[in-house]
Amino acid sequence: MNVAWIGTGVMGASMAGHLQRAGHALTVYSRTKAKSEALLAAGAAWRGSPRAAAEGADAVCTMVGYPADVREVILGRRGALAAMTRGALLIDFTTSRPDLAAEIASRAAARGVDALDAPVSGGDVGAREGRLSIMVGGEPAAYERALPLLQAFGKTIVLQGPPGAGQHTKMVNQILIASTMMGVVEAVRYAAASGLDAERVLQSVGGGAAASWSLQNLAPRMLKRNFDPGFYAKHLLKDLDIAIREARRMKLDLPALRLAQRRYRALVNGGWGDRGTHALLLLYEAMAARNGAT
Amino acid sequence: MNVAWIGTGVMGASMAGHLQRAGHALTVYSRTKAKSEALLAAGAAWRGSPRAAAEGADAVCTMVGYPADVREVILGRRGALAAMTRGALLIDFTTSRPDLAAEIASRAAARGVDALDAPVSGGDVGAREGRLSIMVGGEPAAYERALPLLQAFGKTIVLQGPPGAGQHTKMVNQILIASTMMGVVEAVRYAAASGLDAERVLQSVGGGAAASWSLQNLAPRMLKRNFDPGFYAKHLLKDLDIAIREARRMKLDLPALRLAQRRYRALVNGGWGDRGTHALLLLYEAMAARNGAT
Repeated sequence: MNVAWIGTGVMGASMAGHLQRAGHALTVYSRTKAKSEALLAAGAAWRGSPRAAAEGADAVCTMVGYPADVREVILGRRGALAAMTRGALLIDFTTSRPDLAAEIASRAAARGVDALDAPVSGGDVGAREGRLSIMVGGEPAAYERALPLLQAFGKTIVLQGPPGAGQHTKMVNQILIASTMMGVVEAVRYAAASGLDAERVLQSVGGGAAASWSLQNLAPRMLKRNFDPGFYAKHLLKDLDIAIREARRMKLDLPALRLAQRRYRALVNGGWGDRGTHALLLLYEAMAARNGAT
Repeated sequence: MNVAWIGTGVMGASMAGHLQRAGHALTVYSRTKAKSEALLAAGAAWRGSPRAAAEGADAVCTMVGYPADVREVILGRRGALAAMTRGALLIDFTTSRPDLAAEIASRAAARGVDALDAPVSGGDVGAREGRLSIMVGGEPAAYERALPLLQAFGKTIVLQGPPGAGQHTKMVNQILIASTMMGVVEAVRYAAASGLDAERVLQSVGGGAAASWSLQNLAPRMLKRNFDPGFYAKHLLKDLDIAIREARRMKLDLPALRLAQRRYRALVNGGWGDRGTHALLLLYEAMAARNGAT
């Protein structure tokens, strides 16, 4: 297929690379051209706007940062949709707003274009290894057509429902991650304050009912004081903001989610937005130091 | 060894049974004699008080409900310690207060008795299958002497530090469980409200960075509306109360733990204390219904 790929950050570049190696002809656009270098060196064509990249494409894939970016690269004046023709496929992999996904699907349908929202989970490693979980919202026929592309980098690929359902599913994922992370941070704080050897504590608590991916993968990084991003704190905050907005709309009270949002906002405001989500520990430490506590 | 076992609830009876099958001579006491029937039928001797059971024992094991029960069966007038002789071993498996564990160890030492706090994790299934995680606080020599007993039902057995360190480690475990459970409940609520098929959502989110033991084991029970206890909500509340008390003493601010404590208190006050910890979902639903929300 002729595939246009918009957005070549850490995730996008890995995912596009899998498509390229699977034999698809790539045309790319990214805000920072340097991030597309590896794809261009491997034969991808470059275009100066999402709209230019989308011309003649059988499928347009977007993987950008924030909902505003999604809106711009798809629906904007130089956005992809304006160049897409009847029968083409539009897949947004960005974690974004469910209502925006529905709006895009509706405006795409008006042009005869099938749109899917398909946010992913699995991080940089999952993208590199082609083992992402892809949560899809859209029409079943569009999903079937997209599957050969999704299979290039997805391991768990599930159609969750109509447009927006992929985003809602990703929100469920982030709600889980946020609460679990607070638990891991508070557990690490408690272990340290009570004089325990945290590494040894992990031996006791890591294999039972307290086990989680975050505990297994991120607690050891916290203990080594390695806060490099696997997933940016600022991006999790963006996701939590979306989830809170949706929860309000649905009149759902999710107090742990609200607490996590406040804490991650404080973390980002504190200058840690470009650290990993597990840098939440640094906020707890800073707040305690400010209060003269442990 | 001659082992006195005090407290034969679901966990205690399973654990004592493993000791019995490993060839130790058991003497038992429990508040409700009926709960000891299986052990008695298999050859255990019955005594009418912890003190009577402890007479002549090489090791006394306690597994009761609350810190007040621990105090009574060990330090009370008819408690075990008064009957124990120099060189005997006292192991409390109850999840209880770290400072009580330290007090017991100190009063035991004054009699020449070695005491260990050794709370467990792994639930009724782990106890039955002899695959518990045992978190031990106490002196290394006492730990070494206790190991043959602990190995009868423990899979992960770790000496965490001095008296009380086992209890502190268990608090770490419960802090993790409480936050993770709030995340699972809020995720289930969000999935339902947004019109997703929760079973299908679990396929997408269950295998990645959002994964946890609670999500894997308890979310499916929530979806089947099965709130039977694996672990009682009232017992988790007891543990959270202890953790909060300790956190205050250490001047640690753990807001997710505080939120969990408030929610579990409301759950128990609502009459759900004898349901499983995952019945937290029922509280969320009841609160929403009261507010006329989703």
